[in-house]
Amino acid sequence: MRILITLLTSPAYLCSMIFELKQLAVFFEEESLQHLEQVYTQKDYSKVAILCDSNTHEHCLADFLADCPFLPGDQIEILELEPGEDTKSIEVLAQLWDAMGALALDRNSLVINLGGGVICDLGGFAASTFMRGIDFVNFPTSLLAMVDASVGSKTGINFGGYKNRIGLFADPLMVGIIPDFLQSLPADELASGWAEMLKHGLIADFNHYQDLIRRKPKSESLNKELIEHSVSLKAEVVKEDKQEGGRRKILNFGHSVGHALESYYHQAGMAISHGHAVALGMQVELALSATYAGLDSQEASSMIAALKQFYAFPKVEIEAEVFHQLLAGDKKNSGGQLRLVLLAEPGKAVYDVEVPAESIWSSLQDQQQ
Amino acid sequence: MRILITLLTSPAYLCSMIFELKQLAVFFEEESLQHLEQVYTQKDYSKVAILCDSNTHEHCLADFLADCPFLPGDQIEILELEPGEDTKSIEVLAQLWDAMGALALDRNSLVINLGGGVICDLGGFAASTFMRGIDFVNFPTSLLAMVDASVGSKTGINFGGYKNRIGLFADPLMVGIIPDFLQSLPADELASGWAEMLKHGLIADFNHYQDLIRRKPKSESLNKELIEHSVSLKAEVVKEDKQEGGRRKILNFGHSVGHALESYYHQAGMAISHGHAVALGMQVELALSATYAGLDSQEASSMIAALKQFYAFPKVEIEAEVFHQLLAGDKKNSGGQLRLVLLAEPGKAVYDVEVPAESIWSSLQDQQQ
Repeated sequence: MRILITLLTSPAYLCSMIFELKQLAVFFEEESLQHLEQVYTQKDYSKVAILCDSNTHEHCLADFLADCPFLPGDQIEILELEPGEDTKSIEVLAQLWDAMGALALDRNSLVINLGGGVICDLGGFAASTFMRGIDFVNFPTSLLAMVDASVGSKTGINFGGYKNRIGLFADPLMVGIIPDFLQSLPADELASGWAEMLKHGLIADFNHYQDLIRRKPKSESLNKELIEHSVSLKAEVVKEDKQEGGRRKILNFGHSVGHALESYYHQAGMAISHGHAVALGMQVELALSATYAGLDSQEASSMIAALKQFYAFPKVEIEAEVFHQLLAGDKKNSGGQLRLVLLAEPGKAVYDVEVPAESIWSSLQDQQQ
Repeated sequence: MRILITLLTSPAYLCSMIFELKQLAVFFEEESLQHLEQVYTQKDYSKVAILCDSNTHEHCLADFLADCPFLPGDQIEILELEPGEDTKSIEVLAQLWDAMGALALDRNSLVINLGGGVICDLGGFAASTFMRGIDFVNFPTSLLAMVDASVGSKTGINFGGYKNRIGLFADPLMVGIIPDFLQSLPADELASGWAEMLKHGLIADFNHYQDLIRRKPKSESLNKELIEHSVSLKAEVVKEDKQEGGRRKILNFGHSVGHALESYYHQAGMAISHGHAVALGMQVELALSATYAGLDSQEASSMIAALKQFYAFPKVEIEAEVFHQLLAGDKKNSGGQLRLVLLAEPGKAVYDVEVPAESIWSSLQDQQQ
């Protein structure tokens, strides 16, 4: 009962993808619950802890438990965290480690992460470092976590004002994607995940992008097939380069600028969704692609216009120096040079393109006119 | 220029050991520096950070730098921590992550851990989690770190009153062992490492144990060959079972009781070296081996007497309930049962032996008569 990603609008090179790699054990709907049952019964787990936030506790947990009658009630512990990016911190991580100890989790325990990216990233990191690593599985409940965090083995927390500064590559035993969970998701969060789907299209399959921009980021426009295709595009890239030494970097399109903006908003105590920050980041990096990577400038403008139609922003009043410093903290740089992922043509990204900080700053200003 | 471990008093099954596994890249003396040069020149590192404590800063750093003329002075950052077990904490870890960021370490940087177990464990964990993992190498400077932490890929910190509660299996690119560093080591610390060497003999090669008890735990009695042999005994066990699912557990002989005592002393603000705690732990577990694992009771008594000749303790005034709780937090237990590593015969250990908490407690009392 291994993967499963059927490719509807797929180019030929994706058609043969049957993921053999354990780290890409992504299952959808019914099959995800069947596979969880297999995982659970294969091992004599001493305890099961379900990590959720108060939103998924309210909207997803009861359904999930009802769908998992094989999990024995007296062995299940529920760990509920506050929702939001602030939870992905060292303070909450320390409390979580404490709670795992207090609940007597041991090396034979299983952690089920039931939530968005925050829960999956934090829970995966906590499980992977508790007693030098215990088993965990992810059931992402947000669109962003389904199409982005579900594949790629990234776990971690924010630290020192930087997103995901501390973390690990660590594999969940499986990922289960249940699109029904999206029905309770706020519109803003759907739009956030949508931005990553658009990104997958822009960097690797322009048809997918075109398919998406004909729709609207609403749960009615989404179906299992679209989500599967987005996941498969990401999976294809990750499979080639798990440690992000090369081609995997293209998944960071829109993210160098996006993360800098997100850090800035975060430090200023203002809210911006990851996807909104990435959408603005993609606009800036599309404009730079025309100058530094040979993307046709009319094509760039048309994609920027399409993004603007979905994502609106108040002007970002960020000082050039602060912005440069945030950009410089990006994990993808090396030796002080700023390196971006840009588009060479629609559906084809290039990475490690050195771009002067001043150009990035002025492109950000242009996009905000 | 791969390993290296020549086996002097070795049984036949060890003679063919040429370690192919990357994680066992242990090099001695001159060769370790040559290999570090290879590691350094193979990659275009953006920065090198040397992590030490104030002891190794004073006694080892200048010699080490003089021996490494290939490391360019303007790229080297020195991170100096306070010595002692308290440093292996989440508070210091957070400061270290902060400092790594402030020094602009990035994914292409190298961390050199120059110190005892605290520096290697903490530094390895910090490097493995900073930006989802950057390169590190270990140059252990204490006997304990040379014979124990040098092989096995364990990194981590103490947390919630438990030793190594949080951590990872993560491989240094190489381990360099320079026995000259032992000359500045206090007698107590030598005795601490000696206990682990005795343990390697007790669980896997009784000749090695007998070779050691004819000597005294002083730096004059130690030579490269004895250290290499102890490392090779550990390496042979680790190679078979890196994740500690089975046979590797035998390396925990003396440690279930030893760790509980160490945690107790630590929480009470009193000092006990790891090796001293393990030596007392081995006495208790040797006595239990006669009852629960079939070890000849005269042999057990003779080994206990030999340990007592090297290691003296003040009586441990620990309450039974507190002791049980500390034992119960041990990572090796499962589902609430206490499981010990015991000796079935001299040089042969067995693991996962269930022993009632009361027996462990009364054996501890007996050993303190």
